[in-house]
Amino acid sequence: MTLKNAIRSIPDYPKPGIIFRDITTLLADAKAFRKAIDELVQPWSGDKIDKIAGIEARGFILGGAVAHQLSAGFVPIRKKGKLPHKTVSISYSLEYGDDEMEIHVDAVQPGEKVILVDDLIATGGTAEAAVKLLKKIGADVVATVFVIDLPELGGAKKIEALGVPVRSLIAFEGH
Amino acid sequence: MTLKNAIRSIPDYPKPGIIFRDITTLLADAKAFRKAIDELVQPWSGDKIDKIAGIEARGFILGGAVAHQLSAGFVPIRKKGKLPHKTVSISYSLEYGDDEMEIHVDAVQPGEKVILVDDLIATGGTAEAAVKLLKKIGADVVATVFVIDLPELGGAKKIEALGVPVRSLIAFEGH
Repeated sequence: MTLKNAIRSIPDYPKPGIIFRDITTLLADAKAFRKAIDELVQPWSGDKIDKIAGIEARGFILGGAVAHQLSAGFVPIRKKGKLPHKTVSISYSLEYGDDEMEIHVDAVQPGEKVILVDDLIATGGTAEAAVKLLKKIGADVVATVFVIDLPELGGAKKIEALGVPVRSLIAFEGH
Repeated sequence: MTLKNAIRSIPDYPKPGIIFRDITTLLADAKAFRKAIDELVQPWSGDKIDKIAGIEARGFILGGAVAHQLSAGFVPIRKKGKLPHKTVSISYSLEYGDDEMEIHVDAVQPGEKVILVDDLIATGGTAEAAVKLLKKIGADVVATVFVIDLPELGGAKKIEALGVPVRSLIAFEGH
């Protein structure tokens, strides 16, 4: 079994010319899901990681599993207005316009080791904002991990430019 | 450590008179998070469960971890318009107006054993719709599990009336 074969490609979604990489088929496959979680955090399997941060919404599924795997806590990064306690927020650019994400101000203690998890890295705008948000509240961002990378879009380089390593399991050409 | 002490109560959120039960403090606490996952699925720890279904968005965090714990696949139940492949949908009532949730039509095979996971059960309207959605695509819904129950709102009884057991870890009075 290769993880890449467990991804479903949906042509012309969400618009003509785009191939959407659907991770739900991988998640639904118990063996592929477990293999993906194992491989995502294999370099840190012997380390003490305090917290896993996941980006809403697919990053929550993977992040919950990774936190369980590493016996770490889990911290959600959410769209604006979804977290009930005091938050820190950051704006970032999407293909059409801007958006804003938030984290609880007390979600990590200063210096805690955190790994950021999401399903896919494309241009890296969302992940870059999430890394900056974690650093704002004092996290030591040890790494960012993604199941899928679209390397032509340059996202991994954008994160590495922040001094944070990037790990991904599957690369697809195009976008 | 009690799990209940790991929940943060936020008075007058999202509106005056409501006490919001904030699960993020439990998730961020590695020991409490692991204990919650262990206890949620303890009755099925020796059983073969095919898939865990999680309700967007907090149910994704817990559901990802539970799927990892039981070596099961994970299936997302999402707000309308978020899933890329062919879906089945169901309408349900919220406090103000109606909403609609969806699942991929091929998310489970007929007869597969599924446990539904969410963070909290209140009136049970969301969970009831999710159970019906899972049954529509042929799932054998073995149980529904929640970290928090607000028993005065009667949600658990609504789910049990569908013939599906309910397990919850923490009860809070009021709503």
